[in-house]
Amino acid sequence: MTKQLFAAGVCLAMLLGTGVAVLGDEGMWLFNAPPKELLKKRYGFVPSDAWLEHVQKASVRFNSGGSGSFVSPDGLVMTNHHVAADAIQKLSTKENDYLRDGFFAKTREQELKCVDLELNVLMSIEDVTERVNAAVKPGLPPEEAAKARRAIIATIEKESKDKTGLRSNVIPLFAGGQYHLYRFKQYTDVRLVFAPEQQIAFFGGDADNFAYPRYDLDVTFLRVYENGKPAKIEHYLKWSANGAQEGELVFVSGHPGRTNRQNTVAELEYLRDTGYPFLLQRLNRLEVMLSVYSGQSQENARRAKDELFGVANSRKARIGGLQGLLDPQLFGRKVAEERRLREAIAKEPKFKEAADAFDRIAAAEKKRAEIIKDLTLLENGAGFNSIYFSFARTLLRAADELPKDNAERLPEFRDSGLDSLKLALFTEEAIYNDLEQVKLTDSLIFLAITRGVNDKLVQAVLQGKSPQARAFELINGTKLKDVAVRKALFEGGKKAVDEAKDPFIELARVVDAESRRLRKIFESEVDEVKKQAYAQLAKVRYALDAGTTYPDATFTLRLAFGPVKGYEEDGKQIPAFTDIGGLYRRGQENDFKPPFDIPERWLKRKDKLNLKTPFNFVAAIDIIGGNSGSPVINKNAEVVGLIFDGNIQSLVWDFIYDDTQARSVSVDSRGIIEALRNVYDAHDLIAELTGGRAK
Amino acid sequence: MTKQLFAAGVCLAMLLGTGVAVLGDEGMWLFNAPPKELLKKRYGFVPSDAWLEHVQKASVRFNSGGSGSFVSPDGLVMTNHHVAADAIQKLSTKENDYLRDGFFAKTREQELKCVDLELNVLMSIEDVTERVNAAVKPGLPPEEAAKARRAIIATIEKESKDKTGLRSNVIPLFAGGQYHLYRFKQYTDVRLVFAPEQQIAFFGGDADNFAYPRYDLDVTFLRVYENGKPAKIEHYLKWSANGAQEGELVFVSGHPGRTNRQNTVAELEYLRDTGYPFLLQRLNRLEVMLSVYSGQSQENARRAKDELFGVANSRKARIGGLQGLLDPQLFGRKVAEERRLREAIAKEPKFKEAADAFDRIAAAEKKRAEIIKDLTLLENGAGFNSIYFSFARTLLRAADELPKDNAERLPEFRDSGLDSLKLALFTEEAIYNDLEQVKLTDSLIFLAITRGVNDKLVQAVLQGKSPQARAFELINGTKLKDVAVRKALFEGGKKAVDEAKDPFIELARVVDAESRRLRKIFESEVDEVKKQAYAQLAKVRYALDAGTTYPDATFTLRLAFGPVKGYEEDGKQIPAFTDIGGLYRRGQENDFKPPFDIPERWLKRKDKLNLKTPFNFVAAIDIIGGNSGSPVINKNAEVVGLIFDGNIQSLVWDFIYDDTQARSVSVDSRGIIEALRNVYDAHDLIAELTGGRAK
Repeated sequence: MTKQLFAAGVCLAMLLGTGVAVLGDEGMWLFNAPPKELLKKRYGFVPSDAWLEHVQKASVRFNSGGSGSFVSPDGLVMTNHHVAADAIQKLSTKENDYLRDGFFAKTREQELKCVDLELNVLMSIEDVTERVNAAVKPGLPPEEAAKARRAIIATIEKESKDKTGLRSNVIPLFAGGQYHLYRFKQYTDVRLVFAPEQQIAFFGGDADNFAYPRYDLDVTFLRVYENGKPAKIEHYLKWSANGAQEGELVFVSGHPGRTNRQNTVAELEYLRDTGYPFLLQRLNRLEVMLSVYSGQSQENARRAKDELFGVANSRKARIGGLQGLLDPQLFGRKVAEERRLREAIAKEPKFKEAADAFDRIAAAEKKRAEIIKDLTLLENGAGFNSIYFSFARTLLRAADELPKDNAERLPEFRDSGLDSLKLALFTEEAIYNDLEQVKLTDSLIFLAITRGVNDKLVQAVLQGKSPQARAFELINGTKLKDVAVRKALFEGGKKAVDEAKDPFIELARVVDAESRRLRKIFESEVDEVKKQAYAQLAKVRYALDAGTTYPDATFTLRLAFGPVKGYEEDGKQIPAFTDIGGLYRRGQENDFKPPFDIPERWLKRKDKLNLKTPFNFVAAIDIIGGNSGSPVINKNAEVVGLIFDGNIQSLVWDFIYDDTQARSVSVDSRGIIEALRNVYDAHDLIAELTGGRAK
Repeated sequence: MTKQLFAAGVCLAMLLGTGVAVLGDEGMWLFNAPPKELLKKRYGFVPSDAWLEHVQKASVRFNSGGSGSFVSPDGLVMTNHHVAADAIQKLSTKENDYLRDGFFAKTREQELKCVDLELNVLMSIEDVTERVNAAVKPGLPPEEAAKARRAIIATIEKESKDKTGLRSNVIPLFAGGQYHLYRFKQYTDVRLVFAPEQQIAFFGGDADNFAYPRYDLDVTFLRVYENGKPAKIEHYLKWSANGAQEGELVFVSGHPGRTNRQNTVAELEYLRDTGYPFLLQRLNRLEVMLSVYSGQSQENARRAKDELFGVANSRKARIGGLQGLLDPQLFGRKVAEERRLREAIAKEPKFKEAADAFDRIAAAEKKRAEIIKDLTLLENGAGFNSIYFSFARTLLRAADELPKDNAERLPEFRDSGLDSLKLALFTEEAIYNDLEQVKLTDSLIFLAITRGVNDKLVQAVLQGKSPQARAFELINGTKLKDVAVRKALFEGGKKAVDEAKDPFIELARVVDAESRRLRKIFESEVDEVKKQAYAQLAKVRYALDAGTTYPDATFTLRLAFGPVKGYEEDGKQIPAFTDIGGLYRRGQENDFKPPFDIPERWLKRKDKLNLKTPFNFVAAIDIIGGNSGSPVINKNAEVVGLIFDGNIQSLVWDFIYDDTQARSVSVDSRGIIEALRNVYDAHDLIAELTGGRAK
């Protein structure tokens, strides 16, 4: 489960009413509103408050996106290799490629301090809804209300921080139905303890991404330090002696990033009929284009690798989503839920405000469908797929926007965003003109056939040339490859930008008016309309379901639960567990060719391994992107696994939970120990995990 | 250049008027109307009648699609490895994989007789236009006229065959502007002499297909036998001692399959704006789908290999075509040519009949654009991408069609087509249900999102299930995997087919009425309208340009000419020649990983080779699919090369010739000899080619 999942859709965080429609063990529950009754009814198990506090404080959030947990009293943190990969990459050098070759600190002294890594632990939750609402007088116009809300939230956060010294964030839940103050303990000295070879962490690569059965050791251990010493941790998870069994109830405590389970039928129809098909067409095209480029040489493959992976990953995710939306049973549940809300609204005068909310969203989606192609081509830049165009547009708009008052600027040019804008604009990243040529040609063709070659804007863009010739002229003529040129133009403002006559900047200028016009339509007639309507619907839902449900994911701590459980696919029963022997079989059946190559160490140690040891497993537990690295625990709050992916069917969980086939995918705790013992000789680490004495 | 190119578009063979629009050395000239004046003017060289007869009779047509030439008095034939690949495959066994490992007969006795291979040599051409036209009385209704024409053609062919014993075909040229009687000598005893490893013949694989620079030894030698002995050949091509030089005039004698250079602007606009974009979307999707399936295991890759190659090949061809159509210069030339014709028609009363031909074609293209998606989904079966559906439809329609009078049936069910229909229906080819599941699911999704999930037909197809579930149900429920079942249903007729209640047959039944309706619209409102209008335009063109031009390609022998010449691409000069050293460099830069792996023998013999030997070269010569295997000869009619591909820019030659970048790609005669000598030790073969004594 990669970060790509975070990139989807617009940022709406609203309530799913589950009153009529819960199937299976749905739910990303708040720790201060846990599903005790549900658990009691279904599983005869009620987590105590102490249990909940323990699990909460043993859970760790990665500021870089992802989850983890304390697994020893000495600050040991378990997460996924793919969550820690960025940090491992930054510690690697040409001589020591830890990402490729793995890393294991035999002593504490050898543990490597990570750059930029910050971990947060949720220490307390306080409901501040009343205080927030009290500060927002009824009847204020929306803008004023938002301002008042921002002010009181800032005040609450500052007070809390001053009082406790803890990082304090007020989190809007249920689309503003509730506001909770979350206080976090921060750890900034984080060191790398153990990482396997990336090839075993991500065995099967893109081919097996979002797939099952799997054979991945997607685990990394880090350690948090305080004052130069391993932090002493009261709440850490113990290691289960026996692991989980088929059918056993397990829990996941982690940080799901975002779900859109409140989407109306109209929005889902838009995604199913227009948004996803259009996006998939584009992703398929990009994937073929980048694959062809990559196929031409090893060096090309290296240059395009990240981008190709990103495209393939998005494509998989969208196909999973689209398949879910095309499932009449799933879709029918969304229709039923909408009927329930409509009926409630019709009956209850206090919901009057929301009476036409569904229609307003439907109208917004209609508008969205009308403009999505042009918006994507122009404002999202899909018609000009080159980093030079991004540079050029940023420079052109910066010259226009920066002289304005801060509040009047496009959001990405406001003072608060300038640092990250400059980071992107002044990147020292290598640019390969041959790849830019391929991408830009392809996207200009896409522009021409989508808007039509006789379109005036297309003609102004192509200037009487073929897409390939025009792309060559642009790339060959630009000076924006040079960081110093970009800096000078950024600092030189409008005059410098106008005088540069850089072909890419002139191209950006040609499309800017139309592009801004489309963006404005989207913001005012789609985005804002939906925000307001969804907020009204959220209030209805909250009124109907308060106390018996959970809010959409907000990258804050949630508890999910469900059984370890296989599933049936295309008439075949997919067992819940794989074993280590399966890894070798999967490699063998692919002649150990990438991405099915097995690290040397694993090939050498095969004889030492108990091949029957469980390696990965699936469970019917409600997760989403951001849950990567979450511990899977049993009723005793002992570690039995480590979430690292969802199968292709789980991709629909963005909109709706279903457990017919959809599953979370975890590394088995027994597989981790077996590998640490018999592949990596990491005996001290095992001792620390299982309660023996750590060094 | 693969057979895929033959599959394109509708079968129209009409005249391109080149009076105003010839750029470069355009032309696929008839041997009985050679461009003597043009050659004299441009190159100061006039091929004599003896030269022309010699080259004509040294040229060989492969009935399986492709070209070749005699290169020794003992019946030695040179062609491409990819033209002979099918024959080589059929000679291969598990123990002797000649396709993979190559083959070289050290003695005549070791030469292997091919299965099913027939070669034809054009012995004479006779203009029978007057006799054909005389038999078709003016004023006959179109159907009667066609019947009369078929009758006289059959008579002429039979007379000729009886008289000469030669295979005799009347070939319509210039869309019926002329009829020429071609007489062929047939060779049916064809034996394999030499084939290199497929990996060196197709080095670079799909990545380098349609690309340049190239490093391929795409050559195979065969020998024709008569009465069990090597045939004695009077007209064979001698081998050039020095090969060709940059800028040198060279000729290609071969069998271009089909061009559509008569397409009106309206048809080109249809292809550019609708046809190609829609097809490319589909090809991109199929390529990703098949690549993902292939990536999952080596066995999957094997199962999907041919289909994936075909899709990728088509995709490349279409992108090349689309890029050409998006080139304003090229398109402008088509517009100018159309203006010339329109003006001529307006001025000349005898062209009155053609006055609205352009408009009728435009209307037909409009209709085509309206129905193309549904036609593709239903009648072309793109919405039901499974071999089971093809079986089911054939069985369903056979039950309906076969009881009708022969003339009343759909063409594929007429008696003349039944053999090939049965061959496809009763194929023993392995069917892999997992691949069928992936393909059918994908295509049902495509059907649903293209027609919309609320479409009644879509709902009837999916029966309230998700595409994946419905695909599973169909594949799991069908009995059509069993050849015996298909045979029994075919022979059992309507009753058997109706009673079978096979889910795929029932699916075919659900869509049959709508599918037939769309086909009928296409045939009557698109295809027939265009046929008539194009024939009228062809007459106009023929009247304007007769004697100074060439007809569209018809898979009959043509002569093309032009210089050996590099080109500029994206600011880089691409030299005309590559050398053998480049092969090793290209392999090295890709770590010799497939498709850039070099056969063992070539690696071992590297030191023996003169790496500076020219290996492949490009020339500005007008070719198209079907020219594969054509000899490239110099003014002395000596072999200097062997056509095997065109670059990506040449793909537009389907519609229009241009030599700015478009080039034919050949193996250099010197590279062939160097490889035969120093890699294969084929000294006798060299002696035979170069005029030494053959064994």
